[in-house]
Amino acid sequence: MTQPPSLSVTRRIRSTPWSSRIEASGVLSYTVYNHMLLPTQIRGVEADYLHLRDAVQIWDVACERQVELLGPDADRLAQLLTVRDLRTMEIGRCGYAPVVDADGRMLNDPVVLHVDTDRWWFSVADSDLVLWAGGIALGMGLDVAVDEPNVSPLAVQGPKSQDVMARVFGDDVRTIRFFRFSVLPFEGHPLVVARSGWSAQGGFEIYVDDDTVAGRLYDAIMAAGEPEGIGPGCPNLIERIEAGLLTYGSDITRDDTALEAGLDRYCALDEPIEAIGLDALRRQRDAGVGRRIRGLTIDGPPVAPVRTFWPLHATGGAVGRVTSATWSPRLGTNVAIGMVDTAVTTAGTRLTIDVDGESRQAEVCDLPFPGSSQR
Amino acid sequence: MTQPPSLSVTRRIRSTPWSSRIEASGVLSYTVYNHMLLPTQIRGVEADYLHLRDAVQIWDVACERQVELLGPDADRLAQLLTVRDLRTMEIGRCGYAPVVDADGRMLNDPVVLHVDTDRWWFSVADSDLVLWAGGIALGMGLDVAVDEPNVSPLAVQGPKSQDVMARVFGDDVRTIRFFRFSVLPFEGHPLVVARSGWSAQGGFEIYVDDDTVAGRLYDAIMAAGEPEGIGPGCPNLIERIEAGLLTYGSDITRDDTALEAGLDRYCALDEPIEAIGLDALRRQRDAGVGRRIRGLTIDGPPVAPVRTFWPLHATGGAVGRVTSATWSPRLGTNVAIGMVDTAVTTAGTRLTIDVDGESRQAEVCDLPFPGSSQR
Repeated sequence: MTQPPSLSVTRRIRSTPWSSRIEASGVLSYTVYNHMLLPTQIRGVEADYLHLRDAVQIWDVACERQVELLGPDADRLAQLLTVRDLRTMEIGRCGYAPVVDADGRMLNDPVVLHVDTDRWWFSVADSDLVLWAGGIALGMGLDVAVDEPNVSPLAVQGPKSQDVMARVFGDDVRTIRFFRFSVLPFEGHPLVVARSGWSAQGGFEIYVDDDTVAGRLYDAIMAAGEPEGIGPGCPNLIERIEAGLLTYGSDITRDDTALEAGLDRYCALDEPIEAIGLDALRRQRDAGVGRRIRGLTIDGPPVAPVRTFWPLHATGGAVGRVTSATWSPRLGTNVAIGMVDTAVTTAGTRLTIDVDGESRQAEVCDLPFPGSSQR
Repeated sequence: MTQPPSLSVTRRIRSTPWSSRIEASGVLSYTVYNHMLLPTQIRGVEADYLHLRDAVQIWDVACERQVELLGPDADRLAQLLTVRDLRTMEIGRCGYAPVVDADGRMLNDPVVLHVDTDRWWFSVADSDLVLWAGGIALGMGLDVAVDEPNVSPLAVQGPKSQDVMARVFGDDVRTIRFFRFSVLPFEGHPLVVARSGWSAQGGFEIYVDDDTVAGRLYDAIMAAGEPEGIGPGCPNLIERIEAGLLTYGSDITRDDTALEAGLDRYCALDEPIEAIGLDALRRQRDAGVGRRIRGLTIDGPPVAPVRTFWPLHATGGAVGRVTSATWSPRLGTNVAIGMVDTAVTTAGTRLTIDVDGESRQAEVCDLPFPGSSQR
């Protein structure tokens, strides 16, 4: 292609409360996530990366839709849906919570919020978890409403995010601990404000449940952040690979179990909880996990984005594949995430990689990459 | 925007067996459908429309993924999933089959194929029906495997499609009736070939279950169709609105019941079948359906695509909204699809429409538009 194809935006590809502002700022590219627009480049991937690590950005992540469980059986259904132990997750807490099928295979990797008594939000990655949760509830005859309320997260990310947020929501935001939320007013409208976000640069996510408030909130944050050089941003390919943040659909799919995805610490394998897929994961642990997600570096000049995957080889044959990769200007090498056989997971293992027909050398390493987090 | 944002293609936005060919042909724009690439313009919407109605096109509709039900309870689950009566759907038949939730609200509008004994394919619109079906099966403890096999439909559409298909698959294709399929060999590989497709110009859909066969099949059809001027195409905005083909996510969403969507003839309201949502639809029929999908024309010059929806007003106030619209070069007017209150469904009713802030006149009409079908 001489020029990348444009994206046709119709009602089916849902616009967000902030799409008009994002487009006025000159967004370069979009992706589609949960049937909704998600910007991927504002100024260019590398310029966005430098700005995110240096200053503060406002992100339209409305596509992180909420699946709400509400009613007497909400606690039971929430626990059925994730292999993470939710018994200690009090109201006001958030947690990364893998959702798997009966075979332990990944269906989604949401952040769960215990919003209130008998009320949970699963802030979902890119699959219709509302249909899985609703199907389970209907099939089991549970007394719980499963819905997707119109709640659009707006993220403020970057090392200077706290000062900006404090100007808008008051100093209360400084006391919110990591993966906790408070309910704070904006113009008298109460909003869930969490210290979280899909970067390792620190920041907040505001769960905006009113489209008329949404625009004014965006403008207020932009005005408050002017001294810090705030600007629009979005989840950044370089930053998230360096930080080892996995993308459902790219790095993890339904072909992978939660253990293969390296999410062991979120799997309550030894707890007496009732969760779909937990038995399958216990069996896999006992039998041995054959492959793992790892970091990799790829030698040579900058690579193009991964469209399918790039096969990895050792002397003995095929040993895995790379699912995400990009050039890191900070580390001066290509950084990547891939799934490799357990025989070759040791950091420093050299492998051969087929980059869209071109043979290169790669090296296994730990995730995250050095210096990725400023949180 | 001076230039429409491009689409970032990563592994999560799945490429198809034909993406490299489509891109070599110079595709102008894509959409994302079932987490997969779907071309929206090859030469431009109007040029594509004229070519489709005049000649024959090959369409990469791999994004019409199959949800496969396989096993002893497959028949029962298939009927639970759709309000259409499947009792008369023998092996070898296809059928449009609305899928609704317990409230009768639309979750998907697939074409169902009765592939074999205890085996069904739901060829799905843009939502993860595999999760709904899997959740129901697990929750109810049904003995059925629910999966998304790697089956990619390739469509051949247009008035000259039959002659082209006969050159590739033999004269057997001529005997396939509308919404029936046969299993025909290509290079010795058996393939499901149906007389169906998302246009009103006639044609076929080939369900390709082998990626190594896929490329050779595409090339064979392109070579066979040279005398008819075959070229790549895709579901066309003008053609599908004229034909009254509804898009799930644009014209129908989970906010709409199957009756509001005008799908009465696919709802077995008076049959003794066990289907999710059928009772809710019966109650709505008895209480009265308050709104309906209708066709509309919009006066004035060509409109831009609908991004959210355009409100419709009558003298008394708000009466509905337009969800899809485009300029029809053949009819010399803007053609549209919308949802209107039952008080204003009569063809010829004049309404006012707010087209992104500009007030225009619209007129209710029947679907499909005149002369849309050459099938």
